[in-house]
Amino acid sequence: MVSSYHVAVVGATGAVGQQMIQTLESRNFPIAKLTLLSSARSAGKKVVYKGEEITVQEATPEMFEGVDIALFSAGGSVSKELAPEAAKRGAICIDNTSAFRMDPDVPLVVPEVNEEDIKNHKGIIANPNCSTIQMVAALEPIRQKFGLTKVIVSTYQAVSGAGAAAIEELEEQSKAILNGEDFTPEVLPVKGDQNHYQIAFNAVPQIDKFQDNGYTFEEMKMINETKKIMHSEELKVAATCVRLPIVTGHSESVYVEVEHENVSVKDIHEVLLDAPGIVLEDEPHEQIYPMPANAVGKNDVFVGRIRKDLDDDKGIHLWIVSDNLLKGAAWNSVQIAESVVRLGLLKH
Amino acid sequence: MVSSYHVAVVGATGAVGQQMIQTLESRNFPIAKLTLLSSARSAGKKVVYKGEEITVQEATPEMFEGVDIALFSAGGSVSKELAPEAAKRGAICIDNTSAFRMDPDVPLVVPEVNEEDIKNHKGIIANPNCSTIQMVAALEPIRQKFGLTKVIVSTYQAVSGAGAAAIEELEEQSKAILNGEDFTPEVLPVKGDQNHYQIAFNAVPQIDKFQDNGYTFEEMKMINETKKIMHSEELKVAATCVRLPIVTGHSESVYVEVEHENVSVKDIHEVLLDAPGIVLEDEPHEQIYPMPANAVGKNDVFVGRIRKDLDDDKGIHLWIVSDNLLKGAAWNSVQIAESVVRLGLLKH
Repeated sequence: MVSSYHVAVVGATGAVGQQMIQTLESRNFPIAKLTLLSSARSAGKKVVYKGEEITVQEATPEMFEGVDIALFSAGGSVSKELAPEAAKRGAICIDNTSAFRMDPDVPLVVPEVNEEDIKNHKGIIANPNCSTIQMVAALEPIRQKFGLTKVIVSTYQAVSGAGAAAIEELEEQSKAILNGEDFTPEVLPVKGDQNHYQIAFNAVPQIDKFQDNGYTFEEMKMINETKKIMHSEELKVAATCVRLPIVTGHSESVYVEVEHENVSVKDIHEVLLDAPGIVLEDEPHEQIYPMPANAVGKNDVFVGRIRKDLDDDKGIHLWIVSDNLLKGAAWNSVQIAESVVRLGLLKH
Repeated sequence: MVSSYHVAVVGATGAVGQQMIQTLESRNFPIAKLTLLSSARSAGKKVVYKGEEITVQEATPEMFEGVDIALFSAGGSVSKELAPEAAKRGAICIDNTSAFRMDPDVPLVVPEVNEEDIKNHKGIIANPNCSTIQMVAALEPIRQKFGLTKVIVSTYQAVSGAGAAAIEELEEQSKAILNGEDFTPEVLPVKGDQNHYQIAFNAVPQIDKFQDNGYTFEEMKMINETKKIMHSEELKVAATCVRLPIVTGHSESVYVEVEHENVSVKDIHEVLLDAPGIVLEDEPHEQIYPMPANAVGKNDVFVGRIRKDLDDDKGIHLWIVSDNLLKGAAWNSVQIAESVVRLGLLKH
């Protein structure tokens, strides 16, 4: 007999929350009861799960009574307030915000990389940043086989990572520019920041707010989270994060240095062909390589354009693409929930 | 008394040719006679220069009789055929195609970097690839002051680099997608290649054709041309080139390693503030950084997002943006022509 669980989704009406509900359904996650929660503003909306309408309720501490697994994706402040309340009531929280990621008491998990860390949870498990997840999923098999000393990534990120308002802004702005009409940027690069810039037909080298060291918070997330997930403070990691006029699908140009000598492209291919969650798309002479337009709606991480550096025997270049709302958010969260079940961490 | 010259523009009706003519006019280049040349197909068209209509003529060897300076931008095969003919007739050819760039007898010139190389010309001077020019212009002042050992660049390239048909494809495809209509990619990533892919709201990691080593020709151009322009075979250079839904303006995420220790962001700022052709836009806390939408129509190379690598004292990250049709093509070519005049290399 298979156990089934009381699952809550917090932020059920958001872009990622919606994907979480769809992923729970498509994975046939063992759900006895599904509680959908949101802010007071969105409460009362109805969401269909397995053909049944479920009314979204306001997220309050009491709503987590009896919940086994709570998936959070309603912003950092909601997680900070409610995840401890849910954990106190016995729920295992899987949090998609940055609120707890660097907390030493909170495992930060990409199941293909560090599933075992889940066992150390104290009620909260953090889902990493979207751009981090797809990169570490592709690099971990390489690290295991050949060692990894240095990572330099430049990202090509889609606007859906900044939410539904950013998607709408890209579409409206694109139409305005194509029609020769005026427009006023209001959302991107960062909703709460001072200045807003054109995203349509442009490239904006700012994702999230700037830190005192000149890096953006998105760049620092990639740097710090990668080291934490890979359990390697000595791994050198650098990131430049750029927002582009793409609706969904993050791409990454990644340069790595491995420990071993004479690692060939074929060696990397062999490792990635066997790697969980990875699809190798690397036939340059057939023009086969990953692209965001092809990755949308898929759970996998696509890797191609694998090349040896021409001047450095230990240097390797890769191009990594994934759906930022799925592996980058909803799917990785549900995957963690599946691991929680498989590892027997739920009481019944 | 100022001398003035007989100038020819080959490819006068193309995107870059048009910019060359406009740049010659706006720079008030000392022109006694302007001959505009093209393929037989475009011959007969009229182009306005300084308020006067000039009829475009078919490019043949004989058309170069008496020409002092010939600017070529009509494709590699035209340059291969006609530049030697023009040179034979005494013209100094400035070639914007890749036909002669790696020829050891042909100087490859970015005036801010290696103007002196022009003196070694044997009738043909090559204008580097657009993505190479803006990068070396920004890196040369750093190299001169702090030494340079390694360059890793990921590009964010606009479609105008692939010509007028690519611009039209991006616009038509964007409209189709926004209206929910079907479309058939026919131009990008490479007109003469087998497969064509969606460029609107996508990222395509292929510019120019693939070489046997898995790199694209665009990537190899950046690698080989950078070493040639900087006179440094030992400089490590790697490139990943990506085409994006941007009309004009190339951006580059560049990681470099310098020779000196303890070079600060302030040191780099000071060097770039004094550098010819460079505009520093680097105030992260004011959200000031270069973007292609702001660079269009300007001759400068814009540099920002300058950061020390957090794990490697000699590592520095930069974000470099420029108008690929101007500094990347027309302006650099006219700049070379100005250098030819200033260096006294013309007979009269």
